[in-house]
Amino acid sequence: ASPYIMQQRMGGTIFSIDLKHIGIGESSLAKKYEHLLEGKNPSVAPYAGAGECRLRVTAKAESLDQARALVMPVADDILKTSGNLCYGVDNDTLESVVARLLIKNNLTVSLAESCTGGLVSKRLTDVPGSSAFIGLNLVTYSNQAKIKELEIDAQLLSDFGAVSAECARAMAKGIRRKSDTDTGIGVTGIAGPDGGSPDKPVGLVYLALDSKMGVELVELNLGEKSTRSEIRHATANATLNMLRLFLIKHYKN
Amino acid sequence: ASPYIMQQRMGGTIFSIDLKHIGIGESSLAKKYEHLLEGKNPSVAPYAGAGECRLRVTAKAESLDQARALVMPVADDILKTSGNLCYGVDNDTLESVVARLLIKNNLTVSLAESCTGGLVSKRLTDVPGSSAFIGLNLVTYSNQAKIKELEIDAQLLSDFGAVSAECARAMAKGIRRKSDTDTGIGVTGIAGPDGGSPDKPVGLVYLALDSKMGVELVELNLGEKSTRSEIRHATANATLNMLRLFLIKHYKN
Repeated sequence: ASPYIMQQRMGGTIFSIDLKHIGIGESSLAKKYEHLLEGKNPSVAPYAGAGECRLRVTAKAESLDQARALVMPVADDILKTSGNLCYGVDNDTLESVVARLLIKNNLTVSLAESCTGGLVSKRLTDVPGSSAFIGLNLVTYSNQAKIKELEIDAQLLSDFGAVSAECARAMAKGIRRKSDTDTGIGVTGIAGPDGGSPDKPVGLVYLALDSKMGVELVELNLGEKSTRSEIRHATANATLNMLRLFLIKHYKN
Repeated sequence: ASPYIMQQRMGGTIFSIDLKHIGIGESSLAKKYEHLLEGKNPSVAPYAGAGECRLRVTAKAESLDQARALVMPVADDILKTSGNLCYGVDNDTLESVVARLLIKNNLTVSLAESCTGGLVSKRLTDVPGSSAFIGLNLVTYSNQAKIKELEIDAQLLSDFGAVSAECARAMAKGIRRKSDTDTGIGVTGIAGPDGGSPDKPVGLVYLALDSKMGVELVELNLGEKSTRSEIRHATANATLNMLRLFLIKHYKN
C-alpha cells in the first residue's frame, strides 16, 4: 500500500528505505541481519528478485521526520556492516552507480561481450549522459571476430577455448587497447540452453577487467538450472559489480 | 483469469490467440477492425504496450476444439487483412521471428548501433542459437569510433552530423564490409533527454540496412515527449522490423 493509504488507515505516516545488495544471496542476507528481522518499528525485511537482494527498513510515526528518524540509525548500521555488499539505495541501479563513479573520476570503459550479446552495453547506455564514459563496445560472438577485432591469439583459443579465463583476459586487454580507454572488460561464457559440456557447463562465465593496474578475473558458476535470460542478467550484474568494486578500490567514491 | 478458472466458472472452455502487430498504432488498429470489435463470440480486443499492438481473438465453447473453431476463421481473416503489419502470434517476438527467417535462409547480420547502445544486439542474442547468424556487433557512440571502426568519412560526419540519413547508411555499409555478413544495419539517433536541437529533436532516429540489394533507410520521429527508454525500445522494434520486412521481401518466408 502507498504511504498515503497507510497514513489514512493507521493515523500515522510511513518512511522506508531500500538498501540494495549484490554479491550475497537472500538467505545469507537474512541470516546476517537475523537480529534485526524481529524488529517491529522499524521493521527490516529482505526482498529478492532479478538476481539482487534488498533490505527494506520501514518505520511508522506521527510525522515523516519522526519515521525517518526511526529508520536512519538502523539503515546506517546496515550500511556500515554490509560495506561494499550494499551498492546503493532506493532507485539506484548498478549501472547508475557505476556511471556516477566513472564520471566523477573522468574515466572511460570499453566492453567486449560474448555471451551477454550487448546486454552490459545496453545497461550502461541506459544511463543518460553515458556517452561521456563509453568507448567502443563490441559483441564478438565468433572466434573469428575475437581474433580479427580483439587480436586474440588463435592458439590461445584452440588451447583454452573461447570460454576460459585466458580468453576473458585477452578480450579485456584487446578491447582496452583497441579503444584506448582507461578500463576494458571482457565477458565470455555459456548462456545456454545449448553449448554446455561436462567440462564447461551452461552457466560457466569468465569476466575480466583490464586497466593500468593490471587485469582482474571473476569466474561465475551460475548453474545449469538457470534460464538463458537469468544467466545473461546475472552475468551483466556481476560485470557491472566487478567494475564498481574496481572503481571503489582504486578511485574516489 | 486462467482458462481453467473460466471453465469452472462458466461451464465452458476458452481459446484465444494474440495477433501481434507492429508499424500500426492501437487506435488505427482498432479503427481498421472496428466491425469485429462488437463481436461477442469470438470477441476481438486490441491491447497496446511496450510499443506494440495485439489483437486478441477469444471464444468460449463446450470444448477447446469448438472454441478454436470459432476463433480461427476470424484470426485468419485478420492475418490476411493485416499482411505484413502482423509479425506473429502469441509468444512470437520480433527477434524470434527475425531469427527464424535468418536461419531458414542461411543469412547473417551485423550491427553498428549508436543511440540504442547494444539493445538491438541484446535482443537478437536473446534468441537461443543466435550465434548462427550474428556477425560482429559494434556500439559506436563517438564520432571517433565511427570513423576508425566503420571507416566513415570524417567529412560526411561534419557535413551531415552523426544523426543523419547519410551517417546511418555509412554505418550499415561499414559494418557489413567489416564483418563480411549478408546484411549490415546502422542505427543512429537522439535518445535524450539531452542532445536535441530544433533541427534534430530528441526522438529523431535513422536506420539503414545494407545488403547486396542496396541500402534501405527508415527515418523515425519518436517525439520529444517519449522517455529515453521508450525511444530506445521503439528504435529497437523498428530496427528489427526493418530487417523482418527486408527478409520477407527478398527471401523465403
